[in-house]
Amino acid sequence: MPVVGVFADSPDRGRGLARDMAVRWALTEVGVAHDLQPLSFADMKAPEHKARQPFGQIPTFEADGLTLFESGAIVLHIAETHPGLLPADPAGRARAIAWMFAAVSTVEPVIVEREVAVLLEGDQPWTAKRLPGLEARLRQRLDDLAAALTGKDWLAGDFSAADIMMVCVLRRPAAAMLMGDYPLLAAYVARGEARPAFQSAFAEQKARFDAAHG
Amino acid sequence: MPVVGVFADSPDRGRGLARDMAVRWALTEVGVAHDLQPLSFADMKAPEHKARQPFGQIPTFEADGLTLFESGAIVLHIAETHPGLLPADPAGRARAIAWMFAAVSTVEPVIVEREVAVLLEGDQPWTAKRLPGLEARLRQRLDDLAAALTGKDWLAGDFSAADIMMVCVLRRPAAAMLMGDYPLLAAYVARGEARPAFQSAFAEQKARFDAAHG
Repeated sequence: MPVVGVFADSPDRGRGLARDMAVRWALTEVGVAHDLQPLSFADMKAPEHKARQPFGQIPTFEADGLTLFESGAIVLHIAETHPGLLPADPAGRARAIAWMFAAVSTVEPVIVEREVAVLLEGDQPWTAKRLPGLEARLRQRLDDLAAALTGKDWLAGDFSAADIMMVCVLRRPAAAMLMGDYPLLAAYVARGEARPAFQSAFAEQKARFDAAHG
Repeated sequence: MPVVGVFADSPDRGRGLARDMAVRWALTEVGVAHDLQPLSFADMKAPEHKARQPFGQIPTFEADGLTLFESGAIVLHIAETHPGLLPADPAGRARAIAWMFAAVSTVEPVIVEREVAVLLEGDQPWTAKRLPGLEARLRQRLDDLAAALTGKDWLAGDFSAADIMMVCVLRRPAAAMLMGDYPLLAAYVARGEARPAFQSAFAEQKARFDAAHG
């Protein structure tokens, strides 16, 4: 049974925003039962974990002697080894993979940058002055993404691994707070969240957080 | 013949830092001749280009009716359709793909954030105060990457698509300026740059820049 390394105590307090969410959602979509390995922040920085995840992060994925890191790569591996998460035709498959890369390397970084401005520099006098510029760069990406999704339910034909990655990215706080201005993207995220596999993967981490925090 | 969309006038002034470098390097590694489509900044924002590249960027890749974007996805597509850029065994292949994602979504964003702090906010009074924190976050990634590369020539067995992506990321200015403190990473980048396919892909864009600027 695959084992997914997750936060023992996720800083998102059960909101399903940690990067293991995409992995557990993908596994649930394809019906693969899996175990979890909860990791403390100390565990994540230990040599044993860094041998699996060089940057000391979550998630990790271990199955059949294979150890993987990077949520995008893990979701792609799951999609390549089980039916249902990638288009069957080679061109459609390549396009879906392009959208997976776009989610984590074109859309997510501007969202994370907006978030760390507050998380790491929220007490600095310049942060309030920086936020409009950061938000403008984020809105540029959301404008382009909304244009690309116009008239479509999903990024690459049917629901795919690309949507798992992109919906998880758009659920991050700095994007979620703008969804009122992007009804098309909000509806896209809602379509993802309505899937039974999302709901199940979300409930799992919520129950785990609630159990730990009474 | 594949067509790669590139900057008509790259802002890097012929230093091979634009994101088409990885694509042309990969094509050259596998011996695939290709045409270039030079794009102005106006071209990149035009609807015709955004239909191919939703975020109005370069590179694009067109071949046999397939249109792709995202340099990581294009390099992966090239590696999947030609021998020599991915390990033959499934586990090694998955690990190489994990490193491709790590290059563009874990290492590159902290490099880009350090760069845009100067490019977009270099004239702001707070930028000098922000740089030490940005550099510390970047060094954390480089420390981890150097540890992972210790005792290895390449990220995933033999030279692979993962190294194309990671070397291109490490060649970016904000990482390159720190390489004096990271001799192991500097040697890794030098190994990549010494490959005939890199040299050829580099010379191509350099000649193109020089021709345009006399």
